[in-house]
Amino acid sequence: MIVTVTLNAALDMTYRIEGGLAIGETNRVHRVAAHAGGKGINVARVLHSLGEDVIATGLSGGCTGARIRSLLDADGVRHQFETIADESRRTTAVTDDFGATGLWEPGPLVTDDEWRAFLEAFTHTLRHARTVVLAGSLPPGVPIDAYAQLIGVACDVGVYTILDADGTALRHGIRARPDLVKPNAAELAGLTGEPVDGVAQGTRAAKVALAMGAAAVVATLGDTGMILVNADGTRHVQPPQRLAGNPVGAGDACTAALARSVERPWTERLGDAVAMSAASVVAPVAGVIDHETYLRLRQLVTVKEG
Amino acid sequence: MIVTVTLNAALDMTYRIEGGLAIGETNRVHRVAAHAGGKGINVARVLHSLGEDVIATGLSGGCTGARIRSLLDADGVRHQFETIADESRRTTAVTDDFGATGLWEPGPLVTDDEWRAFLEAFTHTLRHARTVVLAGSLPPGVPIDAYAQLIGVACDVGVYTILDADGTALRHGIRARPDLVKPNAAELAGLTGEPVDGVAQGTRAAKVALAMGAAAVVATLGDTGMILVNADGTRHVQPPQRLAGNPVGAGDACTAALARSVERPWTERLGDAVAMSAASVVAPVAGVIDHETYLRLRQLVTVKEG
Repeated sequence: MIVTVTLNAALDMTYRIEGGLAIGETNRVHRVAAHAGGKGINVARVLHSLGEDVIATGLSGGCTGARIRSLLDADGVRHQFETIADESRRTTAVTDDFGATGLWEPGPLVTDDEWRAFLEAFTHTLRHARTVVLAGSLPPGVPIDAYAQLIGVACDVGVYTILDADGTALRHGIRARPDLVKPNAAELAGLTGEPVDGVAQGTRAAKVALAMGAAAVVATLGDTGMILVNADGTRHVQPPQRLAGNPVGAGDACTAALARSVERPWTERLGDAVAMSAASVVAPVAGVIDHETYLRLRQLVTVKEG
Repeated sequence: MIVTVTLNAALDMTYRIEGGLAIGETNRVHRVAAHAGGKGINVARVLHSLGEDVIATGLSGGCTGARIRSLLDADGVRHQFETIADESRRTTAVTDDFGATGLWEPGPLVTDDEWRAFLEAFTHTLRHARTVVLAGSLPPGVPIDAYAQLIGVACDVGVYTILDADGTALRHGIRARPDLVKPNAAELAGLTGEPVDGVAQGTRAAKVALAMGAAAVVATLGDTGMILVNADGTRHVQPPQRLAGNPVGAGDACTAALARSVERPWTERLGDAVAMSAASVVAPVAGVIDHETYLRLRQLVTVKEG
């Protein structure tokens, strides 16, 4: 079983406005769509659509939390969220004839007791797990080394750990020696303080992450593709073709591919990750992949030794 | 007891963004505030703050509906909403350093059974009522003559009816002969098809509403003040001074003043309504009035015979 952890679960709303969003005025929303969101939840949804045995866990609260859980039920994704008193956050993407404008609420305030309750439930859930994915931001109140604590618990029972985080949460998490870290270019740059543009700079930054404690780093570098850096060296995989669409969630599809293939050779895992990221760009919603695109691209990907 | 009806209850969110709202980008919301909204609910909140015996009724659904009800609980406002299956709407006011941009979700879809259940509950609640306020838009699925049906029920048991609506809902409602209609200039203009700018045009339009079935019309004309038109003639009341602030909810404060004074002479009712509207402009949230401003202005208002 694969366990995903989303400590800052979100209700992702899409508002469609006809014409353009008028600043300073009242805009009538013509269509509203709601999805359960947050990186770990997106990963779980992709894995579920591939027929994997997966459970989404984390923290969720209030009416917004209840709505997130009921949307996961509707998607058929198994879940086990610790309920918190404060209201889970909501993100809104306002789409009009010209593009999309995002509004991101801050996360809920998590109490010490709520965090300890999650930690206990997590320890219990891991008994049945092979792999755990820790993904996304930390809400206020959760300890800054939250991912390090969870990685520690997972390592103790031999569960493979994948970390996809940013900033201080990433920095602290890496020190707990996760099996795999999956940053993008901006997250790598945040880690090292150096710009990351292209394979050479990406590889240099990934080596810093390795030195900090990660056993392996798969970094997604947008159109440039992905790099793997581990003790065996470096590999670079390019997407076989550029696809137009919605890049939000491509990183989560990549993480999903890596989470379901921990026993496979790296060449295969990377090929899968590149094809699945591209198949996510074609789908309109984060956490959904276009299965036909995935199968077609999977045949075309080639993985070079670095 | 005063009963307010809000068929299209809303969760009114205020998002505070630092700097300016950036179109086409992701904006982090720094502060989030939530209030139970919709015209009838605002009227109920004002009446409750004045110590009146009031109950807010209407339709509410889903997690958003649950949140609306729990916010009313927090405000201490008694309520009895018929629960519907669809999600109540949410309005969002995004405020930045330059002003406010509104995003209004469409209302929930109400089924025939849900409407019938409300009608039955309403008939029951009216047994204890002296006055009923019917205010705001109709959600999809509710019959277009919904207000006419409710006014019919209220008239049968001798309950005083106040209608504050717009467009077709207003047009159909007036035909059922409510005791009082409270339109603003735009709503009057929508009713007659003629522009309403100032007291003369407002009076002409209000007389049309009277001819259509209203026993009395109190029209709010912004800075110009208010007019009353009924069988006895016309009266005009001016606010004693211009106050800067948030005009949203001023109409609801006016309706609240008129709802609590049905047995008083018109001169007194109108003075109260003008003072309370102005006291609402000073308060930052719709459905809240500044009591000190209200008491101060109440002494200064003069009502002319028309």
